[in-house]
Amino acid sequence: MDFPLAPGSTIGILGGGQLGRMLALAAARLGFDVAILDPEADCPAARVAKTAIAAAYDDPEALKTLAEASDVVTFEFENVPAEAVERLLALGAEVAPNARALAIAQDRIDEKTFLNGAGCPTVAFAAADDLGALEAAIASLGAPCLIKTRREGYDGKGQTWVEHAAEAGAAWARVGRKPVIVEAPAAFRRELSVIAARGRSGEIALYPLGENHHEDGILRRTHAPAEVTDRTRDQAEQIAARILAGLDYVGVLAVELFELGDGQLLVNEIAPRVHNSGHWTLDGCEVDQFEQQIRAVAGWPLGPAEPLARTEMINLIGDDMEQWPELIAEPGARVWFYGKREARPGRKMGHVNRLRPLKG
Amino acid sequence: MDFPLAPGSTIGILGGGQLGRMLALAAARLGFDVAILDPEADCPAARVAKTAIAAAYDDPEALKTLAEASDVVTFEFENVPAEAVERLLALGAEVAPNARALAIAQDRIDEKTFLNGAGCPTVAFAAADDLGALEAAIASLGAPCLIKTRREGYDGKGQTWVEHAAEAGAAWARVGRKPVIVEAPAAFRRELSVIAARGRSGEIALYPLGENHHEDGILRRTHAPAEVTDRTRDQAEQIAARILAGLDYVGVLAVELFELGDGQLLVNEIAPRVHNSGHWTLDGCEVDQFEQQIRAVAGWPLGPAEPLARTEMINLIGDDMEQWPELIAEPGARVWFYGKREARPGRKMGHVNRLRPLKG
Repeated sequence: MDFPLAPGSTIGILGGGQLGRMLALAAARLGFDVAILDPEADCPAARVAKTAIAAAYDDPEALKTLAEASDVVTFEFENVPAEAVERLLALGAEVAPNARALAIAQDRIDEKTFLNGAGCPTVAFAAADDLGALEAAIASLGAPCLIKTRREGYDGKGQTWVEHAAEAGAAWARVGRKPVIVEAPAAFRRELSVIAARGRSGEIALYPLGENHHEDGILRRTHAPAEVTDRTRDQAEQIAARILAGLDYVGVLAVELFELGDGQLLVNEIAPRVHNSGHWTLDGCEVDQFEQQIRAVAGWPLGPAEPLARTEMINLIGDDMEQWPELIAEPGARVWFYGKREARPGRKMGHVNRLRPLKG
Repeated sequence: MDFPLAPGSTIGILGGGQLGRMLALAAARLGFDVAILDPEADCPAARVAKTAIAAAYDDPEALKTLAEASDVVTFEFENVPAEAVERLLALGAEVAPNARALAIAQDRIDEKTFLNGAGCPTVAFAAADDLGALEAAIASLGAPCLIKTRREGYDGKGQTWVEHAAEAGAAWARVGRKPVIVEAPAAFRRELSVIAARGRSGEIALYPLGENHHEDGILRRTHAPAEVTDRTRDQAEQIAARILAGLDYVGVLAVELFELGDGQLLVNEIAPRVHNSGHWTLDGCEVDQFEQQIRAVAGWPLGPAEPLARTEMINLIGDDMEQWPELIAEPGARVWFYGKREARPGRKMGHVNRLRPLKG
């Protein structure tokens, strides 16, 4: 494949939810066609793409169609089956970000092991594949501690707190008796995140830090740029740069950070993709995270990541969508609705960005 | 139809070129689905729309399919056949802007007659349906003067200058012996345009004036906000407001203006649609002309039309697209490529917006 990809080339995307949709819109602005692979024919991204392939992510025929249609393949979620990526690569497809970044992000033990090895601090942690190992890990790390399945789980799913060592058996049952990570608690003051991008030539672009607020395990609100000390910002940028370089990464990556009381940062987790906590860039930056991702995987130079405004992003979850008549009437609210047919509880239906001037 | 249309509704668009494509992208951001009717199956907008109908604009079956799929139908070009609109209305479809605005914009005599009646000054003009009438019109208005076909013609096509009365016969042949308008020349200093929008409740939003530069009859460059006196701006806003009200207009409309040496404005022509001279709003305003058009036809409140930056828009015409590797590497250049397969001479392939701070 010759990079940079010329306008008119096709970007393949695994996953057709709102992230795929916003990636497709960014790709279209830049003159690309888009091919979406998603099990659901009427998914949000399929409706704005030239080609929509409705099939399971590991369907061999579907992957062949995607590989043949696409000049580069990327994804909107990190739980892409490893076999799917292997098959795409075997078919000669370019895939970005790379398989190693995906594999590391899919396994919480591998992820933290990689992070620590790359010089990025995390909470103390231990792996446990059975109840005995879990009891030993809790004894070693101390309770309270957090148990998460090693693989899968998002928006707070597949995780549980253990307040006392005696609860190990109940926790083991709650997470489904699957291999887990046990994490020491972080006495953090707030959650920050940085959206980072790396291009094919190794150049990087870092957006300013966002400050994230969750409810019921789901991101509710991000405001950016977050007010942080220079030292915190420098530390975040160093962490992001180490991760990008350590993974030989191409694309956009989100780094979720805990800010401790003393301003020190720990990495909570990384997502090898565009991320909800970067939606503020859609209106708050000249080049948003979606265009940045398309630029990176297409081998284009990255665009500027400087903020144009102070932006508050609010997620519209489930019934929040009922507020649409008020939101569209609010002059300062930029609305992004995802085209999902049904507003189920906990489902991300859209978001709103509200902008204020950077200074003052 | 109940307005405002809820997210998830479908916007039908007649015409699938770059304007249809950018309308479709704006609609998608707001949660709408899009149906495109265009004779070419692989047109730029079809590739970002849920539904693409490849058929002639007056094809009865295609219009039925479009009407059934769409909660409101709009268009990207003013030469929509009148029968198509009549048929859509007969099928019970909502069409915006309205048929009268389309009809007036399709006929240069009706257009100038309407404008003068609405209190908007134009050059002196006369209609001529045959060579005798053309000679009489030239004698009355004086040479040099400009001859244009009454209907159709864009980007300088279908028009010719007459330097001396004796050339009437040659000019008549050049424009194809069709009914024409004869226009007195305007001693104008520059061309300005205003992008104006009117919502279903009658509220209006006016973007700042743009200054336009043409080459070979094709728009080459717009910069906005144009530097104008308060008096000129007031006059432009009054003109735009009169046109919108006079047509009971719903949607975005472009008004091309001649600024005379004394700052007085004449209306050159109106376009009942989003317009190339408004592409600067894509990066220079919080809500661009495409979102504004979707908001208007969907019965949503209009968004703010204030500028965020001083913007220079450059069209990429034909071979200009060969500059894409340099343009994508220019940090301050926001590129919009239209996904057209072939860069024919005179064909609009994309545009670039370059932004500078508003003040300073």
